[in-house]
Amino acid sequence: MTIPFDDLAGLRAVLSDLPGPDRAAAEKAQSRNAQLTKPAGSLGRLEELATWYAGWRGTARPVLARPQVAIFAANHGVVARGVSAFPAAVTAQMVGNFEAGGAAVNQLAQTFGARLTVHALDLDRPTRDFVDTAAMSEAELVAAMAAGWAAVDPEADLLVAGEMGIGNTCSASAIALALEGGEAQDWTGRGTGVDDAGLARKAEAVAQGIARIEGTRDPLEVLRQLGGREIAAMAGAVLAARRHRIPVILDGFICCAAALVLHRAAPGALDHAVAGHQGAEGGHARLLERLGKAPLLSLGLRLGEGSGGVLAIGVLRGALACHSGMATFAEAGVSDG
Amino acid sequence: MTIPFDDLAGLRAVLSDLPGPDRAAAEKAQSRNAQLTKPAGSLGRLEELATWYAGWRGTARPVLARPQVAIFAANHGVVARGVSAFPAAVTAQMVGNFEAGGAAVNQLAQTFGARLTVHALDLDRPTRDFVDTAAMSEAELVAAMAAGWAAVDPEADLLVAGEMGIGNTCSASAIALALEGGEAQDWTGRGTGVDDAGLARKAEAVAQGIARIEGTRDPLEVLRQLGGREIAAMAGAVLAARRHRIPVILDGFICCAAALVLHRAAPGALDHAVAGHQGAEGGHARLLERLGKAPLLSLGLRLGEGSGGVLAIGVLRGALACHSGMATFAEAGVSDG
Repeated sequence: MTIPFDDLAGLRAVLSDLPGPDRAAAEKAQSRNAQLTKPAGSLGRLEELATWYAGWRGTARPVLARPQVAIFAANHGVVARGVSAFPAAVTAQMVGNFEAGGAAVNQLAQTFGARLTVHALDLDRPTRDFVDTAAMSEAELVAAMAAGWAAVDPEADLLVAGEMGIGNTCSASAIALALEGGEAQDWTGRGTGVDDAGLARKAEAVAQGIARIEGTRDPLEVLRQLGGREIAAMAGAVLAARRHRIPVILDGFICCAAALVLHRAAPGALDHAVAGHQGAEGGHARLLERLGKAPLLSLGLRLGEGSGGVLAIGVLRGALACHSGMATFAEAGVSDG
Repeated sequence: MTIPFDDLAGLRAVLSDLPGPDRAAAEKAQSRNAQLTKPAGSLGRLEELATWYAGWRGTARPVLARPQVAIFAANHGVVARGVSAFPAAVTAQMVGNFEAGGAAVNQLAQTFGARLTVHALDLDRPTRDFVDTAAMSEAELVAAMAAGWAAVDPEADLLVAGEMGIGNTCSASAIALALEGGEAQDWTGRGTGVDDAGLARKAEAVAQGIARIEGTRDPLEVLRQLGGREIAAMAGAVLAARRHRIPVILDGFICCAAALVLHRAAPGALDHAVAGHQGAEGGHARLLERLGKAPLLSLGLRLGEGSGGVLAIGVLRGALACHSGMATFAEAGVSDG
């Protein structure tokens, strides 16, 4: 697919010209919903999900046929500071596990009928340690976002973007803190499970990275300074989905930090996205609030890989099956109260 | 299937002799879970779900092959008091809709690969109005519970019990109030959507029914006095599932009121059950607390039909797919931290 940007100015142009949903299709879907054999509103959030999806797909009776789960992997210079419970080598090992079909997200993608694509981004070339210097050059940032953009199948009818990258909750925490304010502790959690000493080192790294770029508010610049390639790629993928009117289910804390960059760069940039779940990672609940997204699921997940987003495909499948498959009062000969 | 009771004494005997899970299988499942390629605990509630299911099925690496959704329908004398937004005729109309495949639960059962069975219980013979008199005789109660028991496929490996019955939230509210105490308002909600006047009539009917049986605490007697046939049948079905070590996903307020009868009749009677969702019906959240069950989903549903329970099959499918399908650290050559 042609990538409509090759520098930051091009990216900003894309962000300033985002397509909206098909309001006529959403209205037709709402009208169909009102005729289905159930008390009005009794399917709760399933009803709004179906209408939202119908609007973005431009059809009043949509079917989910081709969901894509795109997993982006990258490595992080900040890992040298002992901010993770796992060594950096695990990123590449887990990419191998994704490719062999052995990870959680493989099982979930299969269960919910989604195609999984895996995108390893320069694993042997970690981003620079953001405590000391900008994690990426402008060219590196643009390349990572372009990789995310290119990963999206334009024929997909749903996207879940997920990630793997030892150390990436540290980077996500720094991005959230830079864009939302507060204290490092507010946004820093245990990730894959660091101990107390690791958590302290992590919060310290986040605080130092933020101090280094003090005053920087531009979301893309924050992403360049603090982000990882997989985080930038997820932002690029969510943006590409918007261009193609492909609805998105957001995953956990790291995915939401990537989405936050878009949200702060362009109001409404996440209108085509819902929050798949609220994870257990410190800061995710707060981040969802800042995004204005109520999660579909809240099951204590803190795995990443897109796992919570893929699990939520089940909810969307249920919503669309009801919306598009149910009989109307007239068809079924049921009194509508 | 042989039904091991033909009177209340027989029912009480069944309740006093409930099988437990296979603890060795659950322990083996827990040990497998610890070896899977993910940080410990990172799949949150999916991990406990898989282990719970493994225990009840007696195998450390279970597969969900034959889930059953059993829908029970009945009519209620109390409807004559104007406690519902829909006329009683809708019960039979919706049974027709279930049989024709047009209802929400049909679409959800198909989406999550469950077999749907529909059981209409004497629709032309409503239970008596519980404000005036006992809703059922002992023989009627036992027959309804036996119908629920007989509806369960002994070869099923999961059960969702659902219901349809205009007026049945009124009956469920009365049961909850009788067994849990409080005020009629605490347990009475809008059901399919009664207006304020209807809600007031409903709370009044609940309060009067409770006043009539004041002091009655025996759960089966409360069910006989206030229950509907579909509520009794759901209790019978959940009990049969226990006998066959078939795990159960509970649905909404009415299903949980049926489950409450078992819970109060025999401590631990719901150990083989999880709460599928928290619905929007007034009192459901409180009822789940009393049952000691945290819901898997909370999406504002208030439809009944087993719909929320069936939606939660998706979560269980995800949990089991991860548990039984993922590679171990050793198999995948991933460092375990």
